[in-house]
Order: sequence, then C-alpha cells, then structure tokens
Amino acid sequence: MSAVRVDDIVALVGGRYQGPRERLIRGVATLRDASEEEISFLGNPIYAPQLRTTRAGALLVPNDVEGDDPRYIRVAKPHFALAQVVSRWFAAQPKLAGVSKLASISPKATLGSNVAVGPFATIGDGAIIGDNVTIYQNVSIEAGVTIGEGSILYPLVSIYHGCKIGSRCILHSGVVIGSDGFGFATEGGRHHKIPQIGTVRVEDDVEIGANSTVDRAALGETVIGEGTKIDNLVQIGHNVCIGKHCLLVSQVGIAGSTEFGDYVVAAGQAGVSGHLKIGKGAQIGGASAVFHDVPDGAKVVGNPAVPFREYARRDMMLKRLLARKK
Amino acid sequence: MSAVRVDDIVALVGGRYQGPRERLIRGVATLRDASEEEISFLGNPIYAPQLRTTRAGALLVPNDVEGDDPRYIRVAKPHFALAQVVSRWFAAQPKLAGVSKLASISPKATLGSNVAVGPFATIGDGAIIGDNVTIYQNVSIEAGVTIGEGSILYPLVSIYHGCKIGSRCILHSGVVIGSDGFGFATEGGRHHKIPQIGTVRVEDDVEIGANSTVDRAALGETVIGEGTKIDNLVQIGHNVCIGKHCLLVSQVGIAGSTEFGDYVVAAGQAGVSGHLKIGKGAQIGGASAVFHDVPDGAKVVGNPAVPFREYARRDMMLKRLLARKK
Amino acid sequence: MSAVRVDDIVALVGGRYQGPRERLIRGVATLRDASEEEISFLGNPIYAPQLRTTRAGALLVPNDVEGDDPRYIRVAKPHFALAQVVSRWFAAQPKLAGVSKLASISPKATLGSNVAVGPFATIGDGAIIGDNVTIYQNVSIEAGVTIGEGSILYPLVSIYHGCKIGSRCILHSGVVIGSDGFGFATEGGRHHKIPQIGTVRVEDDVEIGANSTVDRAALGETVIGEGTKIDNLVQIGHNVCIGKHCLLVSQVGIAGSTEFGDYVVAAGQAGVSGHLKIGKGAQIGGASAVFHDVPDGAKVVGNPAVPFREYARRDMMLKRLLARKK
Repeated sequence: MSAVRVDDIVALVGGRYQGPRERLIRGVATLRDASEEEISFLGNPIYAPQLRTTRAGALLVPNDVEGDDPRYIRVAKPHFALAQVVSRWFAAQPKLAGVSKLASISPKATLGSNVAVGPFATIGDGAIIGDNVTIYQNVSIEAGVTIGEGSILYPLVSIYHGCKIGSRCILHSGVVIGSDGFGFATEGGRHHKIPQIGTVRVEDDVEIGANSTVDRAALGETVIGEGTKIDNLVQIGHNVCIGKHCLLVSQVGIAGSTEFGDYVVAAGQAGVSGHLKIGKGAQIGGASAVFHDVPDGAKVVGNPAVPFREYARRDMMLKRLLARKK
Repeated sequence: MSAVRVDDIVALVGGRYQGPRERLIRGVATLRDASEEEISFLGNPIYAPQLRTTRAGALLVPNDVEGDDPRYIRVAKPHFALAQVVSRWFAAQPKLAGVSKLASISPKATLGSNVAVGPFATIGDGAIIGDNVTIYQNVSIEAGVTIGEGSILYPLVSIYHGCKIGSRCILHSGVVIGSDGFGFATEGGRHHKIPQIGTVRVEDDVEIGANSTVDRAALGETVIGEGTKIDNLVQIGHNVCIGKHCLLVSQVGIAGSTEFGDYVVAAGQAGVSGHLKIGKGAQIGGASAVFHDVPDGAKVVGNPAVPFREYARRDMMLKRLLARKK
Repeated sequence: MSAVRVDDIVALVGGRYQGPRERLIRGVATLRDASEEEISFLGNPIYAPQLRTTRAGALLVPNDVEGDDPRYIRVAKPHFALAQVVSRWFAAQPKLAGVSKLASISPKATLGSNVAVGPFATIGDGAIIGDNVTIYQNVSIEAGVTIGEGSILYPLVSIYHGCKIGSRCILHSGVVIGSDGFGFATEGGRHHKIPQIGTVRVEDDVEIGANSTVDRAALGETVIGEGTKIDNLVQIGHNVCIGKHCLLVSQVGIAGSTEFGDYVVAAGQAGVSGHLKIGKGAQIGGASAVFHDVPDGAKVVGNPAVPFREYARRDMMLKRLLARKK
C-alpha cells in the first residue's frame, strides 16, 4: 500500500480541509474499522453517528455536515471523492500478464497489443481482441466475437459467437453473453425453437456482474448502452435495448423486446415485462413488477408496479382501514 | 446466407400469397430493420403499425390481418412459420467438430459416433455420450452421466455424477444439473446435511437457459419432462417433477418436491413453494408467488397468487376505494 | 451399496423399534418408491397417507405417529435420523483423487496433504489450500485465496483474489466469491467505479448452492457466518454480514451492508434492502421484500414485508371487503 499525504488527497478531490496537512494515509476503511493511518468517508447519513467515534485519520464528508472536526475533508459528493482516492492510490490488485501457453487460441483470431490470456481460455476463429484486454482463465470466446480495448473478462465468462463487447467493459465471473433468447412457436402440442440468429452488442464502459445473462436477439441485436452498469444475476431477454448510463441492480429481469431510455434505475429484483417502453430517467422500485410502459422520469413501485404516489396512498388507505376494523 | 425464392418460402409454410413469386430473400429481420431482400413477420399485434412502413421484401402475417399488401404471406401462426423459415435456410452458426486433444476424457467413458468435444472439457468414468452430441469447451461431465443423441452442451455447463440428459436437449452456458438439493436437519443448533443421493433426469427435447440450476433429488429423481423449455436463471429444487411441454420463463423458482402437470406456463420471476401440485395446463403470472396447489387449467397471479378473476376484482376494488378517499 | 441390519440403524439413530431386527437394508428411498430392501422416512405430515401403502422395509417416523406398523423406527426428528443413516452408509459418490497434471498451479501456492485438484483448475500465487480439500475441474482460485481443510469446490467455481473460505465448506458449481460489489459514484452524467478493495470471508461449515454470488466488500469484509447454508442463485451484496447458522433459500437477494443476526431464515426469492439489520432468529417469508429493519425473532412476510400478523389481517380484510362488494 502507498503512503499518501492528506495534502495530496485534498488536492485530488478539490475538498475544503483545515487539518494537519502532512499526515500520511496508508489505506481506506469504513468509519467503524479505520485506524489513524486510514481515510474513511460518510456516504450514507445513517452512519453519521460514527463520525464521532471513528479513529480514521481523515474523513471525506459532504459539504454541509455539521461540526468542525479537523479531519473533515468537505466535498460535494463523498462517494465520488472516495472513488477518486481509491482509484488513484489504493486499488492495486494482482494483474494477469502475457498469453498463457495453456490457452486455446485460434490462429484465425486477432489479438491486439498487450493482451493477457489466462490458462484454459478459448478464443475462436475470427475473434478480434483489442489492445490491453485481459481474459482470465477458463473464459470462452466463440468465433467472430469482438472485444474493445481495455476490457476485462473475469474467469469463466462465456461469450457466444458473433457478439460485440465494447471498450473498457468489465464482465464478472459467470457472465453469459449471447445465449439463445427464449423463443418458441407452439404447434401440434410441441414448442418449436425459433432459431435466435441475432446477436448482442455491449457498448463501451459497461460493467456486468457475476452470473448475469444477456440473450442474443432473435433477429437484429440485443443492446446494452454505453456506461450502463449491471449487477449480479440479472437477466436481459432477447432484443431488449437498454439505454446509456442505466443502473440495473441484482436479480433484475427484463423480458424480451423491452426498451429502456437512458439513465433508468431498476432496483434489486425488479421485473419488467416484454415489449414495454421505460422512459428516460425512470426509476423502478425494488421487487417491483412492471407490466405497463413507464413515462420519462416517472417512479414506479410495487407488484404490480404503480406510480409511487398511488402506491403510498394505497398503503396508507389499507393501514387506515385496518386500524378501523380492529 | 442463402438466397431463397419467396415461392419456396410460401410452399414451406403453406401460406396464402398473391405477390411476385421470383423475388429472392437473403435474410430475416424485424419489421423496423428489414431491407427489401429480407423477410419479416408480425408476431405481436402491437407492431402492426410497422407493417405500413417496413421495407421487407416479404411478410409472414396472421391469416386475418387487414389490407392487401402484395408482400403478405398469410399463415395461421406467423411465429411458427418464422421458426420454419429460419431453421430451414437462415440458422447457420459455427459448429464444433471433432474431439479436442485438449479435453480430458476418461478411458472408461463411451462416446458415440460424430461426437464433438471442445478444449478443456472433462468427461468422467462411465459416462455415455450419444451420437452427434456437441460438448463445448470447459464443460464438466462427471462420472456416470448419460447424454442422449444430438444434444448440445454450451461452454461451461456442469453435469454432476449420474445425471441423465435426454436426446436433442440444449443446455446453455452456466447450466448446472445435479448439484445437491437444499436439505438439512437442524439438531443441537446446527444444520446437518442430508446427503442428496438421488439424481436428475432431463427427458428428450428439453432446452435449459443460461445459468439455470436443477438440483439432484434427495432420494429418487428430479425430473424435467419431455419438450419442456426453461429460460435463464431458473431454479428447480430437489425432487421437483416438471411435466412435459411446460414453459418456465427466466428467474422462475420451484421449491422442492413440487409437481407440475404437462403444459404449465410460469411467467418470469414466478415462485412456487415446495410440496405443491400445479395442474395440467395451469398458467402462473409473472412475479407471482404461489403458496397453494393450482387446479388443472387455472390461471393464478399476484403475490400471494390468487385466481386471476379474484386478482382483477381486488385491484378494481382498491382503485375504487382510493378514488372515493381522495 | 452396503447391506445394513435394521438393528444397526436403530442403534445409530437412537430410535424406538419393535420389528424384526435382522432385516437387511440396502438403500434409502421415498415412501412411494421404496422396495422391501430400502428404508424410508416421514419428513412432512402431508405424506402420512403413504405410510399405509409404502413397501419400505423400515420407516423413520416421528415419535408421535399413530399406528403400530412393525417397520416404524420412532425418533424425535426423522429428517435428522435420515441424515445420519444416509451419511453413515448410503452416501457414496465418486471422489476426485490426486492433483491433475492438467491443472495450472502456481509454484507460489501452498497445498496441504491429500489435496485433490481436477483438470483445468487454476490456483494462483500465494493461495493456501488446506488438507483434504477437493478442487474439481475448471475451478478458478486466484492469488492469495485461502481455503480451510476438508472443503469441496465443485466444477466451475470462481474465487477472486484474497478471499477466505473456511473449513468443511461446500461450494457448488458456478458459485462466484469475491466479484466486485455494485459501487458507483455518479458525476458528470457518468457512473464512476468505486474500486472494491475489500474481501470476502466465508466461515467454517458453510454450504453455498449452484450459481450463487457473494460480492467482495468495498472496504473491509463481506462475511458469511459459520454453519450458514445458502441455496442456489442467491445474491449477497458487498459488505453484507450474515450471521451464523442462517438458512437462505434459493434466489434470495441481500443488498449491500445489511446485517443478519444468527439463525435467520429467508425463504425463496425474498429480497432485503441495503443497510438494514435483521435480528437474530428472524424469519422472512418467501417472495417477501424487506425494506425496514426486522427485530429479533420476528416473522415478516409480503411485498412490502410486514409482520406476519398484520399480513394475515390485511389479507382477511381484503377478502371481507371483496365478499361484500360482490
């Protein structure tokens, strides 16, 4: 771990700070666990009481926090400041380097410069791997896949043939991109497979969490827009189009052909039916089940999902009725 | 891609068509994206307005669609016709061939003719692999597994020891078959494992989506009936028995020992408790939570799930009460 | 399979038994399937009618079961007795032995005695693998991981760098431990990654089901307490702390920084928001969505989750209103 002067931290995050400037910081920790050589942060007001008891040597806090603790570094967004500090000095992790002799790489694949490939990974015919891509052990990259520069594929990722992954993407272990969409035509008492001949396009700067799945399109493309971040165990159906800079929290499921505008947030376990339009900047509550279109900027919640105001009024009404019947 | 005469397409699907018969079709696309050399289809009435604007060279439409566009090929079931056309001419995908020298195959395993095995796959003692089976890279097949002819196991599938997979099955990346069921006996403050000594039997023509899991039985068998199609991230508990030709959409969960009749449909994120009986042809709504048996042919919905009619009446009543209280 | 005298079974489980003592038992089966050479059990009263028709040669039943069938072995907890009997005599399964030459093991890793490693597994620099650990094919163990003695990692498990797995743990296929938590700071219209520099600690005697995911902490540790059992497709967010001897059924999701006391039970598909405290011994119903703290020993259910009593009263009130409006 590095030793960093508080001075340098304050300069990086552009914060207001009145304390001792030469103090050395050697790590980052939670308010509860931090030692005097570590910096901590207040990211959620429910932890504010811990500001008084923490032993941290410096504290990233919101501009408007009360008190005058000399350790306070006041910033507009402590989470963003934390991201800057950790990325700059404290995010070292073991790096894969070189191309393992135990990988199976098609002679018809194209690898950019400085590509790392772990053992037991496979790269198929015609795949194009950009510069500085890291492909960990046991990753499967089928024929015709393209991966943009700087992307990281953690162990045991599977990319089906012909899918496109953008630059600086991060795909965590167990992610599956391009498996067949769930498309069948029922005839004569049997479900006949509709071959899924489309593909998947994951744009730049997308992160996808462990064991999430993105199905290839029946026809055309399933799209994950630039800068969108997807958590673990999320399901994206065939021909879904997710806008840019969306956040999909774990176990969310989006059924086929649904379109999300940019900056949509879907909280954990939310589900969205197929063939819907979810407007730009819409917010979907945790464990909500969305069966209808959602307008731009709307907030919906509940199973079935309704506008947040209606949800709150329903809840209040039920409570009142219940109180009366006692 | 092939070039196919519209004539031949009409003959294959048995459709009614009045347009130019020599036109060549070179691919399949959505109404929005199709060019004049591509065929498209109307699978969902919400896309009917696009019939007027699509540039597609031919159109698979339902028998009763209005208008007299010369491109219309009228059929009873456009989805089924699409499946036929794509399967016949447009579903080419890269095929694995041969047995990789980088696979680890027990000398005590038996491989049929024309089996393909990718690198870093393992096949255990006593496994029996049928003719024309495709086993992609990094698939794990443990001892005593049997796989019927023509089945496809995509990369990173795991089949635990002794499980049986039928013929013409498709298992997508990350599928796990035969992991231990969740069985514990609590005694003295600790949960003691009940060894799961049963197995899993997946019958013929089953497809299972990416990262879905099917647990082995505690005793006896967990069964997935013939022709059943399972989407991604679905959980099938130990000793569950799923009937034939069911459809389980993504993120569905079925708890232990529950039995499904044939032709049950469970929409996305539905959950079903253990030890229940879901009748033949029953339909379970999306995000529904089923805590009781469901009779043959019934449709249930909601959390907790109730018959569809009761659900609709509850919803209407709440809306009325809400309007009154405003 | 062994042949075991009923006598020996009665002695092991400490049961009351009046039947013939020399009978030989060669296996274990359900009431419906058992033959005269097999033992069965009554674990759930709904199957009691099958006691009359079963052909089983011996029956583990609760102390208070009616009747005087000479095959009855009366015990306090038939499930626990079953676990004992199966573990002692009938749980044989193929075992991996030795270290495969097809694995990739860092010379800087430390392996205890009697470790088994399958083909195409990787073990990174500085990893420490305890005695009698079994690592199946295609498992990925990154640098600095420690695994306690006797643990079993089934095929295709992924453990990210620096995570700690206790002794006698069982991790099923597709489990991912230590993937990045879902942490981003939004600034200038983009989501900036907060590097997740914490780790995961899985304590002793934990079992984790297929394709479940446990994210590493942003800072500090994500913890799974001793003896806790987790089913398939469960999501554990960053900095979550799960107490000892909890049971998390399949498809449960726990959002970041939430703390569970000991002996919490969360039924299938339940979701719990972030930064909550779930008290010791609390029970969360299936498909419930928990948005608030839960006190010790409380039982909550529903979406949104409320105390069980309130849930039951809401339900009854709705039914009454509905009856009146008909």
